[in-house]
Amino acid sequence: MTWPRSELLAALLAEEEAEALVVLAGSSRDPDLAPFVGGARLGEACVVAHGGGAWLVYFTSMEREEAARVEVGGVGLVSPADFGLETLRREGKTYEEILAAAVKVALDRAGVAPGRVALAGRPAAGIAVAMAGTFEEGGWKPVSGRGLMLALRRTKTTGEVEDTASAARATVEAFERVSRVLADSSVREREELWLGEERLTVARVKALAAQVFARHGLEQPESCIVAPGEEGATGHSTGTPQRVLRAGESVVVDLFPRGLLFADCTRTFCVGEAPEALVRAHGLVLEALESSLDAVRPGVRGWTLHERVCRLFENEGFAVSDRNPGTQTGYFHLLGHGVGYELHELPSFRKTGQGTDEFVAGDVVTIEPGLYDPEAGWGVRLEDLVVVTQDGVTNLTPLPYDLDPRAW
Amino acid sequence: MTWPRSELLAALLAEEEAEALVVLAGSSRDPDLAPFVGGARLGEACVVAHGGGAWLVYFTSMEREEAARVEVGGVGLVSPADFGLETLRREGKTYEEILAAAVKVALDRAGVAPGRVALAGRPAAGIAVAMAGTFEEGGWKPVSGRGLMLALRRTKTTGEVEDTASAARATVEAFERVSRVLADSSVREREELWLGEERLTVARVKALAAQVFARHGLEQPESCIVAPGEEGATGHSTGTPQRVLRAGESVVVDLFPRGLLFADCTRTFCVGEAPEALVRAHGLVLEALESSLDAVRPGVRGWTLHERVCRLFENEGFAVSDRNPGTQTGYFHLLGHGVGYELHELPSFRKTGQGTDEFVAGDVVTIEPGLYDPEAGWGVRLEDLVVVTQDGVTNLTPLPYDLDPRAW
Repeated sequence: MTWPRSELLAALLAEEEAEALVVLAGSSRDPDLAPFVGGARLGEACVVAHGGGAWLVYFTSMEREEAARVEVGGVGLVSPADFGLETLRREGKTYEEILAAAVKVALDRAGVAPGRVALAGRPAAGIAVAMAGTFEEGGWKPVSGRGLMLALRRTKTTGEVEDTASAARATVEAFERVSRVLADSSVREREELWLGEERLTVARVKALAAQVFARHGLEQPESCIVAPGEEGATGHSTGTPQRVLRAGESVVVDLFPRGLLFADCTRTFCVGEAPEALVRAHGLVLEALESSLDAVRPGVRGWTLHERVCRLFENEGFAVSDRNPGTQTGYFHLLGHGVGYELHELPSFRKTGQGTDEFVAGDVVTIEPGLYDPEAGWGVRLEDLVVVTQDGVTNLTPLPYDLDPRAW
Repeated sequence: MTWPRSELLAALLAEEEAEALVVLAGSSRDPDLAPFVGGARLGEACVVAHGGGAWLVYFTSMEREEAARVEVGGVGLVSPADFGLETLRREGKTYEEILAAAVKVALDRAGVAPGRVALAGRPAAGIAVAMAGTFEEGGWKPVSGRGLMLALRRTKTTGEVEDTASAARATVEAFERVSRVLADSSVREREELWLGEERLTVARVKALAAQVFARHGLEQPESCIVAPGEEGATGHSTGTPQRVLRAGESVVVDLFPRGLLFADCTRTFCVGEAPEALVRAHGLVLEALESSLDAVRPGVRGWTLHERVCRLFENEGFAVSDRNPGTQTGYFHLLGHGVGYELHELPSFRKTGQGTDEFVAGDVVTIEPGLYDPEAGWGVRLEDLVVVTQDGVTNLTPLPYDLDPRAW
C-alpha cells in the first residue's frame, strides 16, 4: 500500500520540478505533517515523500507504537535506531546535527535524486536554515514547498472530510446547547440575562460549548468567540470572560473546534427585542449567506462571490472593504476561506489567491458574510461550513439562522 | 522606554557573535514572538531586535490597534504602509517577496550592521529558506537562533511569572472541582462511578476542567489528560472520552492550560479501595516528589534529581529509564521540564541539556515523578509547578496529593 495522495504529490512535484517534498515539523500537530500521520501523536518528526512513497522519521522509541499506526497508512518508517540517535547523542552532536543525520537517512531511504527539494512544515527557523545547508552539501537545492503543500492539503481524503463533518456535528450540537440556554435565560435589571441564580456571562457560554467539545474529544486550539454588543462589533474580539450578556444586544458566537481537522460555524443571537438596525443587518447578512451558498459550485471563485456581497451591502449604504480599504464599520472581512488542518487554508477568497482559486469539488470552505457597527455597538455574522460538490454544496452546519434563540 | 529584555539579548547576541535576532512568526501564538508582543493578537508578524531595541513588523492595518499595544511595551512598529504592502500586492509580488521587503525595512530601521543574524520563530520552512536568501543578499549571514531564543525565554519577566501563577491558580481550582465531583460520585454495578443519574466519563471530567478554564479566559491548546486505569498506565494516552471511570482504579489527571504562558499540574485519584500495588506506588511517587522539591535550588541540575529518583524507584524493584532505555513499565519519563510560552522549554532535565542546565532563580519548572504498570493497568503521576527562588522553590500548585478524593 502506498500513501493515498502519492499521485497528486507526484504531479505537484513535477510542476515545481522538484525531486521530493521534505516536511520538518515540531509535532504531529504541524498541519503539514498531519496529512501523513493522521491521528498518531508524535513530537519532533520529519517526512520525505515523492510519487514513489513517503517515509516518516521519528525521534524517540517511546513513539514506536504511534509510528506503527502511521506505517499502517502506507508510510515507511525511519526509527531513532536507523539513524543512530543514541550514538549521535553520546558523541555530543547538536540538535541540528542530529536532525540533519536523520533527514539524510530518510532521503537515502527514499532514493531522492540530486536536484530541488520542496521544504514544508514549521520547524524553528534556525533549524530550517541549518537543514538547508545539509541539503546543499548533498546536492539537493531547497526551495519553498509552501504552495505545493497547501495544494496537497486542499484535496481532502474521504477520512479527512469525515473528520471535518464529525467536528461540524459537534459544533451543531454546541450551538443547539447555547441557543437553548439563551432561550431559557431570564431578563433582570439593567437588561442582564440570568440563568437560574447566576448571571449569564461570556465565560459561561464558552464553558457550555467547551463541555460539548470535551464530550466529543475535540479541542479548541484557536479558542472561540462569544462576543456581545460592542465586542462583537469589532470583528476580532474573542469576548471578555466576565462580561454579562444583555437583552436587546447582539451576541456573535463563532466556534471552531478541531478533531484532526477544524470545523467552523458562526451564529448571531439577540435575546428579547432586537434594535431595528440589527434586525435589518441580520436580514441582509442572511440574504448574502443564502445567495452565496446557492452560487458555490466548481469553477466559481470565492472573490467573485465576495464582490457580489460587497455590492449588496454597499447598495444598502454600508461601507465595504473592497471600496473602503481599512474600514472598521460595515463589511470588513472576506466572505470565506478553506478549512482543513489549519483553520484558514486553500481555496483562498482573496482577489489574488494562491494557486488557482476557483472552487473544485471536494473543497471544504466557509461562507461567512457579516455587518458591524462599532459606534452603535452591534455585529452580525452568519457562517456555514460546506463541502463543494459537483453541482453545489453539502452544508455541514445545518442550523437555524434566527437572531431570537426562542425561534430555534 | 526600551524592550525589557534588551540587556540580556545584547549579552546573548554577543556570545553568538550575531548582530541581531530576527523572529519570523505565523502568529502572536508563536512562542518566540510572544515575549515581544505579550497579549496582542496578531497574524503573520516579524521582529528584529538587538541591545538597542526591538521592532515589530505587522501585515494588515486591521491589526493597528493590537500593534499599538505592543508599542506601549517599548517595541517600535513597522506598519504595512511602511513597507508598501498595497503596492507590492498590486505589483503581483509573491508572499515570500513581500515578507522579504518587510523584513528588509525592519533591518534598516534597526540599523543592523552586516554580519550574522540569529533566526528564530516557526515560519513555514520554505519561508525561512527564502528569507535566508534575502539576508545573504543584504550581507547578513543567517544562523540558528534557537538556542539564543530558548535562553532569552527562560528568563521570565515579573509579568510573565504572574501570568503563569494566574494560570496555575485556575488549575488549582479545576483540580478542586474535579476532586469534589469524584468524592461526590457513587459506585454502581461493574464498579462504575455515577454522578446523579449519569455515568462519570473521561469527557465529563474534562468538561469540568474546561468550564473552570473558560471562566478564567484560559485555553487548552495542547488538550489535557484524564486517563483512567489502563489508559493512565501508558503515560501518553489522553483518555477516551466515552470511557466510564471505575472505583478501585487509578485516574491520572494532568492539566496544562495556557493564558499567555502555560501552567502544568498532575494528580492521581482512586475512588474507593485502591489496590495495594497502586497505594505503594503512590507513596513512592509522593516521596520522590517531596524529596525532589526539597532539593531544587539554584545550582542544582534537573538530571541529578532525576537520577536520584531513578535510584529510589530502582531500589524498590521498578524498571527505570536510565538503566532500561525504552522500558514501558516503571519510570520512563524525565523528572520535569521548564514551562513558559511552550509547555516544554528550558531548563532541560536531560543528561545533555541545552545550554546550562543548572537551575537559576526565576526558572519555572515542573517536578513530576511517576510509576506505571501497563500489565496491571494502573499509573501514578504527581506533578507540581514551581518557581525556583534563591533558596528553594515557591510552589504554584499547592494541592493535596491524596489518591482518595474524599481526603481532599
